[in-house]
Amino acid sequence: MANHRVTLRPSNRTVDVPTGTLLSEAVQAAGQELGQPCGGQGRCGRCAVQVEGSGFRRRSTVRLSPEDLTAGYALACQTVVEGDLAVAIPPQERLQRMLVTDRVAARAEVPLAYDPATMQSLRVIQLALPEPSLEDNQDDQARLLAGLADAGVPSPSVPILVLRRLGPVLREAAWKPWVVVDQPDPTAPARLVDVSATPPKPLGLAIDIGTTTVTIYLVHLDSGEVLAQSAEYNDQIARGEDVVSRIIYAGKDGGLAELGDLVRRTIATLLERIRLRTAVDPAEILKVTIAGNTTMAHLFLGLPPASIRLTPYIPTVNRPERILGFESGLPVHPLASVDVLPGVASYVGSDITAGALAAGLDQAEGLTLFIDVGTNGEIVLGTRDWLVTCACSAGPAFEGAGVVDGMRATEGAIEEVWVHAATFEPTLRVIGGGRPRGVCGSGLLSLMAELFVTGVVDRGGHFKMDLGTPRVRQGEHGPEYVIAWPEESATGRVLALTKVDVDNLMRAKAAIFAGFTVLASRVGVDLADVQQVLIGGAFGKYLNIEKAIQIGLLPDLPWDRFRFLGNTSVRGSHMALLSRQARRSIHDLSERMTYIELSADNAFYDAFTAALFLPHTEINRFPSVAEIWARENGRPEKVPSREVGA
Amino acid sequence: MANHRVTLRPSNRTVDVPTGTLLSEAVQAAGQELGQPCGGQGRCGRCAVQVEGSGFRRRSTVRLSPEDLTAGYALACQTVVEGDLAVAIPPQERLQRMLVTDRVAARAEVPLAYDPATMQSLRVIQLALPEPSLEDNQDDQARLLAGLADAGVPSPSVPILVLRRLGPVLREAAWKPWVVVDQPDPTAPARLVDVSATPPKPLGLAIDIGTTTVTIYLVHLDSGEVLAQSAEYNDQIARGEDVVSRIIYAGKDGGLAELGDLVRRTIATLLERIRLRTAVDPAEILKVTIAGNTTMAHLFLGLPPASIRLTPYIPTVNRPERILGFESGLPVHPLASVDVLPGVASYVGSDITAGALAAGLDQAEGLTLFIDVGTNGEIVLGTRDWLVTCACSAGPAFEGAGVVDGMRATEGAIEEVWVHAATFEPTLRVIGGGRPRGVCGSGLLSLMAELFVTGVVDRGGHFKMDLGTPRVRQGEHGPEYVIAWPEESATGRVLALTKVDVDNLMRAKAAIFAGFTVLASRVGVDLADVQQVLIGGAFGKYLNIEKAIQIGLLPDLPWDRFRFLGNTSVRGSHMALLSRQARRSIHDLSERMTYIELSADNAFYDAFTAALFLPHTEINRFPSVAEIWARENGRPEKVPSREVGA
Repeated sequence: MANHRVTLRPSNRTVDVPTGTLLSEAVQAAGQELGQPCGGQGRCGRCAVQVEGSGFRRRSTVRLSPEDLTAGYALACQTVVEGDLAVAIPPQERLQRMLVTDRVAARAEVPLAYDPATMQSLRVIQLALPEPSLEDNQDDQARLLAGLADAGVPSPSVPILVLRRLGPVLREAAWKPWVVVDQPDPTAPARLVDVSATPPKPLGLAIDIGTTTVTIYLVHLDSGEVLAQSAEYNDQIARGEDVVSRIIYAGKDGGLAELGDLVRRTIATLLERIRLRTAVDPAEILKVTIAGNTTMAHLFLGLPPASIRLTPYIPTVNRPERILGFESGLPVHPLASVDVLPGVASYVGSDITAGALAAGLDQAEGLTLFIDVGTNGEIVLGTRDWLVTCACSAGPAFEGAGVVDGMRATEGAIEEVWVHAATFEPTLRVIGGGRPRGVCGSGLLSLMAELFVTGVVDRGGHFKMDLGTPRVRQGEHGPEYVIAWPEESATGRVLALTKVDVDNLMRAKAAIFAGFTVLASRVGVDLADVQQVLIGGAFGKYLNIEKAIQIGLLPDLPWDRFRFLGNTSVRGSHMALLSRQARRSIHDLSERMTYIELSADNAFYDAFTAALFLPHTEINRFPSVAEIWARENGRPEKVPSREVGA
Repeated sequence: MANHRVTLRPSNRTVDVPTGTLLSEAVQAAGQELGQPCGGQGRCGRCAVQVEGSGFRRRSTVRLSPEDLTAGYALACQTVVEGDLAVAIPPQERLQRMLVTDRVAARAEVPLAYDPATMQSLRVIQLALPEPSLEDNQDDQARLLAGLADAGVPSPSVPILVLRRLGPVLREAAWKPWVVVDQPDPTAPARLVDVSATPPKPLGLAIDIGTTTVTIYLVHLDSGEVLAQSAEYNDQIARGEDVVSRIIYAGKDGGLAELGDLVRRTIATLLERIRLRTAVDPAEILKVTIAGNTTMAHLFLGLPPASIRLTPYIPTVNRPERILGFESGLPVHPLASVDVLPGVASYVGSDITAGALAAGLDQAEGLTLFIDVGTNGEIVLGTRDWLVTCACSAGPAFEGAGVVDGMRATEGAIEEVWVHAATFEPTLRVIGGGRPRGVCGSGLLSLMAELFVTGVVDRGGHFKMDLGTPRVRQGEHGPEYVIAWPEESATGRVLALTKVDVDNLMRAKAAIFAGFTVLASRVGVDLADVQQVLIGGAFGKYLNIEKAIQIGLLPDLPWDRFRFLGNTSVRGSHMALLSRQARRSIHDLSERMTYIELSADNAFYDAFTAALFLPHTEINRFPSVAEIWARENGRPEKVPSREVGA
């Protein structure tokens, strides 16, 4: 096949590729990163590039206007190379490093009453061995094992990597070596992790791999304390913003390996940041626990995730065995255990089981609802005696993606909006205080609630065009609300919330609310009887509870029943790192949670459809909202007393 | 430091090295192999090279004559580079590939009554799993484990390398996968080795890593039969001919890794040879057992062997855990178990424990002596109820090394000699039938016996100079016997056995004989009471029993008590590959054998000194020899009846 030269502008880097190569692959082969939030499916339009020359063919022009096409724009993921050409990549949204979790920097507490002697699987022991002689000439390993047996560690396994160091270390240590042993299961033999002539630090690492954000805690295993923490966007985002896009990407040639490398690169970056702050070499880390949704676990472990998204939604594994540092590809100690915690099903992973433990669901006496709002929304309902769980694909709308002027919660993002009930003029709170560049998740939720409560949109999510304000207008893509005029924005462009955006947000909130209601109806309980609503996820810390109820994302319960727990997943990972009992509890939770597959449930579709209103088809399920809405809109509705059933 | 250019002749390859670099290292850095049989200790003289230029300094000139020095010869391992120079490497002894074991090509039999169902740890099972559905949505691993539990394999461990293949394989196999499980210990959980959509061949590999020769058997684990076998010199020989030289070499920078790579290269070469004959890809091999002396085991496993040769002679490990294919560096299946069999002590390794099993020592009713004659001589004495063992450093003389005109048992080697009792003229048998190039081990043993019996050397190993034959003469290095005149040899040089060679051979045989006697005296038995003498080692097949007794290498017992078993080590390795019970027996033998450290035993030195005569200081211990010697030499000695005690 003929080869064609692809030249990048402005760098003038080149690459030669055969006819038919995807332009996105050519650009990446030339060493240029290219964001593909929808996973190269031609859905998001984010990979649009400007092409010089005629040696290409567009397979799809979705999201490109006739003007764009004239200007040479093409979707890199939907365009094939058929001749020499040059490509200019428009400046991508600059990735701000001011993450939500970094902005808060809450000090992580030791999450349980910690007694390392009874809880910790990892032990650091100094032995005093008899010196060998011609009379006592057993081999080094036998001598070490005898000393360990005396120290209460009978017959541990001795990995070859330890054995290779053993002879020189014993002699350098003058037969008083330090030994690291790990015994996650007290009924099974322990395993040697390291031997050394100097005392090693007992360091562990708790990780939460989120679809969007990766969080790590460096933990001292004697005290349980977090020595340092760091969080960063998951580098996989460039290959798809939600798990389905990632699963599709993983199915491409080399995609699975690439996604694994990307999340490992993210973790390595965080470890490097911690090294600069604490001087801790990652290779000193002797134990790792990881929580994450099932897809994240598969991508980290290198397991093909294809079957997760195909009916009947079967993962390769929910409860993987521990692997070792060298098998994980992380820069930790090669013999550190790397424990990807047990999950429940394809869409309820260990972020939820670990989160449920951190939220105390295993101890909950009253009826409890646990919600993890992320790119997926996962829900657990029950008490310490029974638990049901489900997942609903909320999509990334609440994280600022999939919305025309959406963005991540970084500098320039509108994070809260108030709309004047008479003039319909907005007041904005912008992260960093300057002019806005877009709207992040909490801003979108806030704006939606305000537009609803002020009557700018009706209960069906339709804009009222007769309010007499220029803010509500017919835009290029249909009706929209102008959040910022060009002179008010940092970009010089209008920022608006369109009807399409509203529909996206309604679907996201409807999916989560339908999840509650189907779960509740499956077990025959009334949502009104829920004693506590525990909200996890990085997003949870910023969720405005009032507004979340107003749009029907959360059930209409007294506010004192809601608790915002922040990142429950990393907290559960931290607990499992410290305590064998906590690790066991997560395992037990993974077995006890009854998973409800919503995609196979007509009741879910009915509930979802019913929730595609503001706050809901049956507004009497939201008495507090009905009251406000009636007051603001001057049209009192009858507010009946609460009904039984979801 | 200044760099100097070293140029190889005749290739004119060059390398730049700093002042002080060893010439041997410079030559190797330039990519030229250089034999160093003594391990770079300046003892053997085999690395002599011819240097042009003056930019070098000799640290030692051992084995170089004044003429050699004038001609520019230097020992590469004892010479440092101090300026530009050129080096010519004399043609090394061409490595013939006609190995002893290949010449014989005896068909290896299945070494035990083999019932794979009860003996074999490895099982290949086809499962028929229920297809997943929305109602039966357990994960792939759980489904597989349920199927295995039904097949009698409860809770095997699932390595991540298997897990990564599991999802695609189950679907490709339409839920009827082939599974390979290994369970060496029936009381411990099994381990998954592989899953596949097509039936795998149950192939195993039995290896014997000798100091000089590596032997492998490719074995079908259903029938136990050897599908192919191959043997080759251990590529480590170029870094030292005996274990002590190798241990010293391993202590150099990078030496340990290099020696490990060399033996792996040897095994890979053998596997490639088998692939050409059988089309078996080494990656199909699912299980490996390895026998070898303790130093060979350490070098293969990457364990620093330094402490093996330093008092109190402590190895890192005698009974290593199994490792996996990918940890071993062998090109076998990455999850094949690679089982280096258990040994006893620094100088009694698994070649002896496996050999003892193959020789039937665990079943021996009468007093049995087992001897493995290799570069080291190892000895086991006892019955099925008790066993003592020791090792004596015989050196490589019996393998043709460390002797002026010695060579390996390849084409051109004299393998048997007869000396005329009157004329003292020799008759030679040469491997391949042409003119001789040197003398191999069996030839040396034969020649020694003949020279002794014909009175050319006396009982002290001294040449008689007054025999009236030009064959016995004063040579450059003292008295010598001319085996071949220049016109009789293939090299055009004289081939001779020198006094120094005789002394080397005497020390080798004395060491082994002293081993027997000390072992026997330690346990208070008489060597004359030994019911059977079992001789292993590749050498054993060619040992002329009569002549071995004549020089005092073997005890003077009726010939029908001797059995030559060939390579007992690889046979024991083959047994362990087939049978868990055999593997267990080798382990038990390694624990039951009482090791006697001869280097710590004055009795050994006394016995060794006493054996430094032909056949022994006390010739009456060798009544058959005394009779022949008296007859041939016309000087009858009194031959008393046998005495008690060794």
